[in-house]
Amino acid sequence: MYDTLLDLPLLQGLGRADLTNILEKVKFHFDKYTPGQPITAQGDKCDKLIFILKGRIRSELTDKENRYALDEFIDAPHVIEPYSLFGMVTNYSSSYYADTDVSCVTIKKEYILTELNKYNIFQLNYLNIISNRAQSLHNRLLHTHVGDTREKIINFLQQRCLNPSGEKYLHIRMEDFAILIDDTRLNVSRALNNLQDRGLVALSRGEIHIPDLEKLSKYKV
Amino acid sequence: MYDTLLDLPLLQGLGRADLTNILEKVKFHFDKYTPGQPITAQGDKCDKLIFILKGRIRSELTDKENRYALDEFIDAPHVIEPYSLFGMVTNYSSSYYADTDVSCVTIKKEYILTELNKYNIFQLNYLNIISNRAQSLHNRLLHTHVGDTREKIINFLQQRCLNPSGEKYLHIRMEDFAILIDDTRLNVSRALNNLQDRGLVALSRGEIHIPDLEKLSKYKV
Repeated sequence: MYDTLLDLPLLQGLGRADLTNILEKVKFHFDKYTPGQPITAQGDKCDKLIFILKGRIRSELTDKENRYALDEFIDAPHVIEPYSLFGMVTNYSSSYYADTDVSCVTIKKEYILTELNKYNIFQLNYLNIISNRAQSLHNRLLHTHVGDTREKIINFLQQRCLNPSGEKYLHIRMEDFAILIDDTRLNVSRALNNLQDRGLVALSRGEIHIPDLEKLSKYKV
Repeated sequence: MYDTLLDLPLLQGLGRADLTNILEKVKFHFDKYTPGQPITAQGDKCDKLIFILKGRIRSELTDKENRYALDEFIDAPHVIEPYSLFGMVTNYSSSYYADTDVSCVTIKKEYILTELNKYNIFQLNYLNIISNRAQSLHNRLLHTHVGDTREKIINFLQQRCLNPSGEKYLHIRMEDFAILIDDTRLNVSRALNNLQDRGLVALSRGEIHIPDLEKLSKYKV
């Protein structure tokens, strides 16, 4: 158990003695979820850190205004949205569901501030994780460029995914996708069918399955 | 002097007694710059926090590959790129120059970690500032959408500016801008001239002056 905890993103580098001290003072809330069960919902107040200890979760980003939803998959060890615990908008930006059997541990924000932040290594891990996210998002923004239909489809996914690699599902109607990337329905359909012929996406009604976004991103005509 | 320091982004909320304690242990390095003098350069190692106490600075983001440079202006009190002191890429993402007479104070990273981080309020300010940046960048990525030539020009600026309002200069050749936003030179030129007629931009050779990005962003045909 100790080793699993010390493997977690924010706790890495802490000593076993530090962890013993922390466990004496901080309430760790352990939970288990079965496949499909919701863990936390987009828009909910983020007032705790949820660490995924075992299993795989699915994140779901829903954009009601633009009528799409984007699914991604994340393996343990993982911490859910540490960047939503502070700042102006302390709400989850996606929903999270168990995709396999999942074990997790939750720590409330008050303990983060009063106890965990006493440890330099924890502070440093936290600052590094959020700074990394800010740097990676900035980098993506600088490298957004408009291209042909295929490039616009790939850019759309790259800009919105938490993780630039791995399996994704985009739930969207072809008409709505065309509007979002300012192209015609016919062009979008042609480009997607072309990517499907190459095994890079699989199309079904209202859904685009991307087996590996990295592979799709690397594809050049 | 105390009041000026306690107005700084990361120090806000500290007590005067805290600041006295900090000043006893931490070396604050004070500097003055005259208009045009460089403060720090894009790509340089970020191993300190530079606080702007008085005056106005100009930031300059240069993208050599895509052959453009983007200038923005920032008023004191301000801290330069706190999100570049931690994370994977600890280099400044822009260059900074004095635009008026500027006073600033510099604190080395080692003091941030050993002394300033002892104060809960400082930790919290730091986490809030970087989380805000990550949230605002994510929000911008989610709302990138492709549009007509005018919208693509505005999107390009919004995606790359530190601050969504205020005066900007974009140094770029019309041909390069057209390639970047995947449009024709003629369309880009037409759209820019149209915006110039409305006083939203001012064009000169190799340079686009935006008096107020917020006003430009709000403009609807």
